[in-house]
Amino acid sequence: MGIDPGSRKTGYGIVDMDGPRSRHIASGCIQTASDRPLPERLKTIFEGLTAVIQSWRPAEVAVEQVFMHRNPDSALKLGQARGAALCAVVLAGVPISEYAPRAIKQAVVGSGAADKSQVQRMITLLLSLSEPPQADAADALAVAICHGHTRQTLRRFGSAAVLAGRRR
Amino acid sequence: MGIDPGSRKTGYGIVDMDGPRSRHIASGCIQTASDRPLPERLKTIFEGLTAVIQSWRPAEVAVEQVFMHRNPDSALKLGQARGAALCAVVLAGVPISEYAPRAIKQAVVGSGAADKSQVQRMITLLLSLSEPPQADAADALAVAICHGHTRQTLRRFGSAAVLAGRRR
Repeated sequence: MGIDPGSRKTGYGIVDMDGPRSRHIASGCIQTASDRPLPERLKTIFEGLTAVIQSWRPAEVAVEQVFMHRNPDSALKLGQARGAALCAVVLAGVPISEYAPRAIKQAVVGSGAADKSQVQRMITLLLSLSEPPQADAADALAVAICHGHTRQTLRRFGSAAVLAGRRR
Repeated sequence: MGIDPGSRKTGYGIVDMDGPRSRHIASGCIQTASDRPLPERLKTIFEGLTAVIQSWRPAEVAVEQVFMHRNPDSALKLGQARGAALCAVVLAGVPISEYAPRAIKQAVVGSGAADKSQVQRMITLLLSLSEPPQADAADALAVAICHGHTRQTLRRFGSAAVLAGRRR
């Protein structure tokens, strides 16, 4: 399961990576009401993700690593949403891995410099979707696929140590 | 109950404001292990505060409002800790109020421009503590007292509407 946390929209995407291909299981977006108080919005994210995790029981969760943000105000908002999202995952007892944005684009598009629309197009192709997923759901599916690829590669080489190193 | 969230230390303080004076009930600091992964540290904050809330059953919780942060990286870290802390409170069903830093200093020291050590000294005096509380616990007690004063003033004037306006 991949998660793309955000104070207004939190995308999630669940992918089955057991076979040779990635299969889309579920994806969507948890939207918070911008006119509601902050604690209530964090509750929506926490409870929304908890419900998704309880429904689909993902084995592992992956999120995008956050690097230096330009704007402190948006960094605080993203942080709060991220805190709520990660709490939901860790309290459900699901292990979390983090991936750099470049690694995610590399895994999905084949180039670390790909833009958002290229990621969305490749997600649609890779998962044989009839239409492009919503933008935040697409980002969540991308980090799920990146994690799936990484796991498969590591399993092939039997290197659990490297995987452990990637987990934060 | 006042909470002062932080990625390394989250202070909390519980004060009984039912009588004419503030009485110290409990205070302390939830410390996260800086060498542990982020999700685990957020879990420590969430579970620590949940345990405190379950022990003391505070009627209301108050936190300091965060204004524009200088450093985006620390804003993200604070945001994540704050997200975990607010999730613990809101999931326990306790209402949350936020107060501006100046309002907290004004309520405790009588001046919005007071420094940290003045707040710590006044908290020790106001709550008749035998020694100054740990810094983050003192900040949490300060926001609890600020909230208690505000509630008492409003109750005196029977103005629940103003209190509702302060709640975010």
